[in-house]
Amino acid sequence: MKACLASSAIQPVLLQQVQPFNETQPIDVLLVDGAIAAKGAQLAVPDHAMKLDARGYQLFPGLVDGHAHLDKSLLGRDWYVNDVPRNLSDIIANERRYRREQRPDAQLQSERVTRRCIASGTSFIRTHVDIDNEIGLANLEGVLETRRRLAGKVDIEVVAFPQSGILQNPGTAELLDQALYLGADLIGGLDPCSFDRDPVTHLTIIFDLAVKHGKKLDIHLHERGELGAFSLELLLSFTRRYQMQDRVTLSHGFCLGMVDAERQQQFAEQMAELGISMATTAPSDVEVPPWALLDRYGVALCAGNDGIRDTWNPYSSGDMVQRALMLGQRYRWRKDQEIALAAKTITYGGAEVMAVEHYGLSVGDRADVVLIPGRNMVEALVEMPRDRKVFKAGQLIAENGECLF
Amino acid sequence: MKACLASSAIQPVLLQQVQPFNETQPIDVLLVDGAIAAKGAQLAVPDHAMKLDARGYQLFPGLVDGHAHLDKSLLGRDWYVNDVPRNLSDIIANERRYRREQRPDAQLQSERVTRRCIASGTSFIRTHVDIDNEIGLANLEGVLETRRRLAGKVDIEVVAFPQSGILQNPGTAELLDQALYLGADLIGGLDPCSFDRDPVTHLTIIFDLAVKHGKKLDIHLHERGELGAFSLELLLSFTRRYQMQDRVTLSHGFCLGMVDAERQQQFAEQMAELGISMATTAPSDVEVPPWALLDRYGVALCAGNDGIRDTWNPYSSGDMVQRALMLGQRYRWRKDQEIALAAKTITYGGAEVMAVEHYGLSVGDRADVVLIPGRNMVEALVEMPRDRKVFKAGQLIAENGECLF
Repeated sequence: MKACLASSAIQPVLLQQVQPFNETQPIDVLLVDGAIAAKGAQLAVPDHAMKLDARGYQLFPGLVDGHAHLDKSLLGRDWYVNDVPRNLSDIIANERRYRREQRPDAQLQSERVTRRCIASGTSFIRTHVDIDNEIGLANLEGVLETRRRLAGKVDIEVVAFPQSGILQNPGTAELLDQALYLGADLIGGLDPCSFDRDPVTHLTIIFDLAVKHGKKLDIHLHERGELGAFSLELLLSFTRRYQMQDRVTLSHGFCLGMVDAERQQQFAEQMAELGISMATTAPSDVEVPPWALLDRYGVALCAGNDGIRDTWNPYSSGDMVQRALMLGQRYRWRKDQEIALAAKTITYGGAEVMAVEHYGLSVGDRADVVLIPGRNMVEALVEMPRDRKVFKAGQLIAENGECLF
Repeated sequence: MKACLASSAIQPVLLQQVQPFNETQPIDVLLVDGAIAAKGAQLAVPDHAMKLDARGYQLFPGLVDGHAHLDKSLLGRDWYVNDVPRNLSDIIANERRYRREQRPDAQLQSERVTRRCIASGTSFIRTHVDIDNEIGLANLEGVLETRRRLAGKVDIEVVAFPQSGILQNPGTAELLDQALYLGADLIGGLDPCSFDRDPVTHLTIIFDLAVKHGKKLDIHLHERGELGAFSLELLLSFTRRYQMQDRVTLSHGFCLGMVDAERQQQFAEQMAELGISMATTAPSDVEVPPWALLDRYGVALCAGNDGIRDTWNPYSSGDMVQRALMLGQRYRWRKDQEIALAAKTITYGGAEVMAVEHYGLSVGDRADVVLIPGRNMVEALVEMPRDRKVFKAGQLIAENGECLF
């Protein structure tokens, strides 16, 4: 993603004595023209700068939700009584039925949930948007409209996602093609063996589309054990064959938590070599990929909230801090330095997955930051405080869990 | 626990149009003299009653934290940088070293963390208090003092807990004996095979003490797989032999999540028959007992926050609502009626484990209740809202996450 620096009409901001979450001392940080203009003591501060006493706050770069489904959320609608079977195809069929009968407005819904994400400090979102032969491109258009409306408040990457399969859902391949013309940034995919029953054809379609449009690819892989490992092997070989290095993300990848340690290493090595990144939701009810191992091998790692209050499940509040805690607890990270990987995953890791330019806390980086109370990074996460201050392009856009726009 | 009804000096409270979490319609609920005096429409309300517009709130009976370690919390102290190995005996040795060097005040610490628990709606706590040949009874005395200071605000059951083992820690058996004289309500135990290396002697000591003092028993069992199952079999036979039916709780019991379905059923059947209850923390990093199965067999089930910000781990905020969500996610409960078991676990289940009298939302029950915003029970949980109103014995004692005393 290209940096989108704001105009100079924005009032400069001086964050006084704020503690960068990955440094050891509080410092002053000056935000000017949408960027971090200076850091340190005795800065030259413009007279009209807004000064914010930021003692006691940790400074994080804007949080990254690397795997969301903004179009699915039912936030703000009548309560959805979940009585859905556990089977994946039943869950998907149920969602289609709900959508057919209730006609939720994907633009309205995605905007509602995105505002909650922003209010909790999220600045970058990669969202998978359902495309099938029933809903067509309606959800995509809704989310693209939300992206326009919230431009300057949050950066959204859109994945054209065949939630109902491609081969199982005739016409979807053509719709995906149109979606990429319309502005989707990535092509998605879903369980090429277990859902579409023809992994090579499924992968051929999505890789062809990726290459045709010069877009990246992000595939959902829930398949377990050996089946998932087989699909992952195919994904590796397709990535190589289509020369899609550094342009593929594996979402979920439970199977990586189910193979033995030696194969985990082999997968990690190949994923690092091919620049295949990963997204997790840190689920507590299924095996998870070996996060620290993948990190050591240099695989870019992000986390996401997945569905937020939808027909799939009623959980999540869109808060990436909460997701970081789930990650820490899932991996039994208790040492401060272990929890640093949770913090990295929701910040720098996510930014690497989304290829955000000028991301970080260095001078020259985008002034997309969030201040969270805490004596240090771990405390800021475990307290999950509501009192956060969210800046986008140097402008305060949310406070105390509420958007200011 | 006996009901402790407050004096009539307390102003009556009318909760107007509040929604009992397990009923279908909002109603008026009148709290008088520490009890739920009436429910329904057109109640005879005393003139001096405080009237609270409770539309939009779910009414829960006071939440139950059935497994805590209040004496261990480091809340409010200098930040503890966790760099502790994963091994259980190292973790315990590290905690002893910290205590020796830093001398945290168990009374102060337990009061701090208990106030946070109260503020989030917890009304009943069973806490395990460390007893060993180094700390002696100091932590017990601290927690008993906290119980005195917070009497009328929260009900605390104290377990005399041999965190460093009994056989591994000479003198502990005698200290446990004294602890039960001093006011501990239960005798604790810990991994009789893997920690104390002599399961029969360990169990003999704690069951002897339970019978001698006429107290209940709550044992930590982290042992995995077959080893844990063996210890559990011993626990069942000791319970039978000592006639401790309805007086034993199994905490954690990971092994129940590791044996096959047939053995799970056999254990559930025997636990139900012997009235052995269970506590879980809903950990995401290890197998968990088959909760729905145990519930179907009639085993009393509670959840707990375990350690809250201690040398073991930095997680948790003392909030049982958050714990209920962890439970729901751990067991992949997504249907509203599945999540009802999470709600039951932090309310009625916990009250059954702690044998709280007059617990509930019926007329005549203790007016220990918490109001949580939400259109229904599930929403009240998943929103994890800060805006709660906590009543103890009919008196408003906490609001918006802060104690009013």
